[in-house]
Amino acid sequence: MHIDAPFELVLFGGLGDLSQRKLLPAMYMLHSDGRLPDTGKIVVITRRSLARPDFLDTVYEALQQHVSGDYLSDENWQSFQRYLLCHTIDLQDEASFKALADELQPECGNRVFYLATGSDLYVDICQGLHRQQLTDTSKVVLEKPIGHDYPSATAINQAVAEYFDESRIYRIDHYLGKETVQNLMVLRFANSLFEHQWNHKYIDHIQITISESLGVEQRAGFYDHVGAMRDMFQNHLLQLLCITAMEPPARLEPDAIRDEKVKVLRALKAITGDSIGQKVVRGQYDAGVSEGQPVARYRHEPGVAANSNTETFVAVKVEIENWRWAGVPFYLRTGKRLAERACEIVVHFKEIPHSIFPLQHKNTMANKLVFRLQPDEGIRLMLCEKRVGPGMNVRPMNLSLNPSDHKKTRVPEAYERLLFDVLVSNATLFLRDDELMEAWRWVDPILTFWNDLEQRPEPYTSGSWGPAAATLLLAKDGRLWDEAE
Amino acid sequence: MHIDAPFELVLFGGLGDLSQRKLLPAMYMLHSDGRLPDTGKIVVITRRSLARPDFLDTVYEALQQHVSGDYLSDENWQSFQRYLLCHTIDLQDEASFKALADELQPECGNRVFYLATGSDLYVDICQGLHRQQLTDTSKVVLEKPIGHDYPSATAINQAVAEYFDESRIYRIDHYLGKETVQNLMVLRFANSLFEHQWNHKYIDHIQITISESLGVEQRAGFYDHVGAMRDMFQNHLLQLLCITAMEPPARLEPDAIRDEKVKVLRALKAITGDSIGQKVVRGQYDAGVSEGQPVARYRHEPGVAANSNTETFVAVKVEIENWRWAGVPFYLRTGKRLAERACEIVVHFKEIPHSIFPLQHKNTMANKLVFRLQPDEGIRLMLCEKRVGPGMNVRPMNLSLNPSDHKKTRVPEAYERLLFDVLVSNATLFLRDDELMEAWRWVDPILTFWNDLEQRPEPYTSGSWGPAAATLLLAKDGRLWDEAE
Repeated sequence: MHIDAPFELVLFGGLGDLSQRKLLPAMYMLHSDGRLPDTGKIVVITRRSLARPDFLDTVYEALQQHVSGDYLSDENWQSFQRYLLCHTIDLQDEASFKALADELQPECGNRVFYLATGSDLYVDICQGLHRQQLTDTSKVVLEKPIGHDYPSATAINQAVAEYFDESRIYRIDHYLGKETVQNLMVLRFANSLFEHQWNHKYIDHIQITISESLGVEQRAGFYDHVGAMRDMFQNHLLQLLCITAMEPPARLEPDAIRDEKVKVLRALKAITGDSIGQKVVRGQYDAGVSEGQPVARYRHEPGVAANSNTETFVAVKVEIENWRWAGVPFYLRTGKRLAERACEIVVHFKEIPHSIFPLQHKNTMANKLVFRLQPDEGIRLMLCEKRVGPGMNVRPMNLSLNPSDHKKTRVPEAYERLLFDVLVSNATLFLRDDELMEAWRWVDPILTFWNDLEQRPEPYTSGSWGPAAATLLLAKDGRLWDEAE
Repeated sequence: MHIDAPFELVLFGGLGDLSQRKLLPAMYMLHSDGRLPDTGKIVVITRRSLARPDFLDTVYEALQQHVSGDYLSDENWQSFQRYLLCHTIDLQDEASFKALADELQPECGNRVFYLATGSDLYVDICQGLHRQQLTDTSKVVLEKPIGHDYPSATAINQAVAEYFDESRIYRIDHYLGKETVQNLMVLRFANSLFEHQWNHKYIDHIQITISESLGVEQRAGFYDHVGAMRDMFQNHLLQLLCITAMEPPARLEPDAIRDEKVKVLRALKAITGDSIGQKVVRGQYDAGVSEGQPVARYRHEPGVAANSNTETFVAVKVEIENWRWAGVPFYLRTGKRLAERACEIVVHFKEIPHSIFPLQHKNTMANKLVFRLQPDEGIRLMLCEKRVGPGMNVRPMNLSLNPSDHKKTRVPEAYERLLFDVLVSNATLFLRDDELMEAWRWVDPILTFWNDLEQRPEPYTSGSWGPAAATLLLAKDGRLWDEAE
């Protein structure tokens, strides 16, 4: 698939971390794959002005770091440069917006403003663009987290809506751009085998983990004001939950899918008051060993307040109050400085009602379906088979499916998928305003509770799987977290 | 697992095709794997007497042909010889039975008579053994086909029962000894994912194929009196049907399993009168090309009557009249000189009720579970996945499980499994008398109909997948045979 008409992509925060690591490399790969039209502009917005050679050097360095060498040919890089423009904007300076407007083609029918900045700047940027009449037909992409709670998100949503119609607002969650997440939809809705059993009658519980081995690294200044709940849980984890739990949409259309996702969010059992203590665990990493190296406790990280109560780990027992999922807990967790980097959705089917085989441990040998999103993407079905040889002994085994196994297909990065979808105005994998607000509405009481508590989260050793309370959260239901394999 | 007490295995038809290709190699492999006790006898019964060196040469040649070179060490062969005895029996000569009795240890508590002869000799052999008081505590193994119709099978069953208690009669069907058939039981009864959908609500139909590329070869004299229905269908195909269709047994015990299997046979919808023409196809191969070589029509094979009406192909639409399988056809077929050698059980799940994906052909992309027994053993689950890349296109893919993939485990031959089971008196994988009789009872009307018809079966080209009527048998139900992959 290929974009036909000329496009204009304006990247605010254009030389920031996200742009350099993901957005510019993704545009480069779309170009390398021949999926961009010959005519187009990628306007990289910077805060300080840069001479073109310095600007190109900066982009090239970013590509060298983040694009596989196989694709970084001189020829492709030369032809990619023709899209690239650098433009300096001072949000307080009307003239810099005017100059931007002059750079753009008034008649361009496919213009995207990508706001890869903090969400506190979204309104100023939108206003600046609006004053130059740039918002009427353009699309805008908003990066997460949008706001830091329900009221602030409401304010941003409402302000952006003054300038951009909802149909032209693309709230991005790059987890939805991952092949395996889309494959989860296909696995569910293109196969009778799974979808017939995708409910409380056959599923015991579901675990969703996003674990990082890294600490806060260079992002301490940002992270210490945000924490794991806002940075990972409110968006990525809840979105993965929605895709896993939603009813089959009637059509593969953005609103058909988003209607189903928002229904899941609205059906989440509220966690307030006493139940916060019972169903939510928050942690903060202590010193420990990560990937063989001794590492510092969170409060000692440069840029982190010495008395910070910011959580670097959250685990929540989520319940969905509808017919499909009654009685099926979803255990969600995310954290930094955990034992390894992994992202997995693990569907635990119920154990068989009666075993006739010797040595079959009914509970540990229940069927599992694992969707792995990180570090590699793949799907694994755990079944029991006969152990080859005499007797009728049973052992667990995995049927594995790795998308890249087939004909060495390159698995595209999530941002390639999503930038392409924005450019062709396909909103299927983006969040609608009501999804965002429902997620904040559900998360808000927990954030408020913690804020009022003024207590340090439960400490956990760096390199472990989080605080003991997270283990207990499942243990009291007679279950264990899956350790990634 | 290992046999502790001394054993005696007496092989009637001891230098016949089955013994040389399967039974002696299987005993050799059990010995190589250290699973036989130090003390034991394998008495090979021949019709003409053989000097010991010639006898040992014959056995060694058989092992050379049918045992993998990795296992045929001098040391193992030397130690295997101590079990081997050769004994000549003339069924009419009482003295030769007496001499056999003298060879055996009166106090041996684990003696097996293996009748690898035509079933017309079973009664004579049993009588001869009985006259020497050899039948009271011994076990007897009966090879298929037992009889050639319901009355003859009844007569043999009753005669053998005069000398051997049912608990000591092992009716062998070597298909039940195959790893994948046992794995089918484990896959069904150790995994909730499959068994919950193993019924008419979720399964569209099931196909079972045993195809051979060979013609009658050296067996024409035997085969022309037997045909595909008696040689393959009445035993192997119906047994595979039973294992596929039976209810979960309450225990892994011989009678618990055989009770369930016989219930399937009793629930088979009778095929009589007009329905024979509608549901049964028989064929006889014509000249054609097999594995690149021109081959003759069946009636021109040496040893086949020039006007033979023996069928070399059968396909039957089988229905099971019970709650689980109402409305789910089982299509069974077997034949010689078909396109390839394969044995597969293919479970076709129902298509999904509603597809939201472009380019998804609902019917050809329905989930399938394939149990492959020949030429290699393995299990394959056909699912739909997302095609990697842009869009949400669906493609079929296979999750594969090959038992020998794991740690290069050797997959034992069916006869190793079954001979060992006889020696340890485990009857789980053997047929009970009522199973045998129910199978004959169901097949008999079809055999009688054909016999009365005196017509040549429908011809099919050697190297094809059988007569056109076999294709039509499914096509009129809107289905197609699976071609093995």
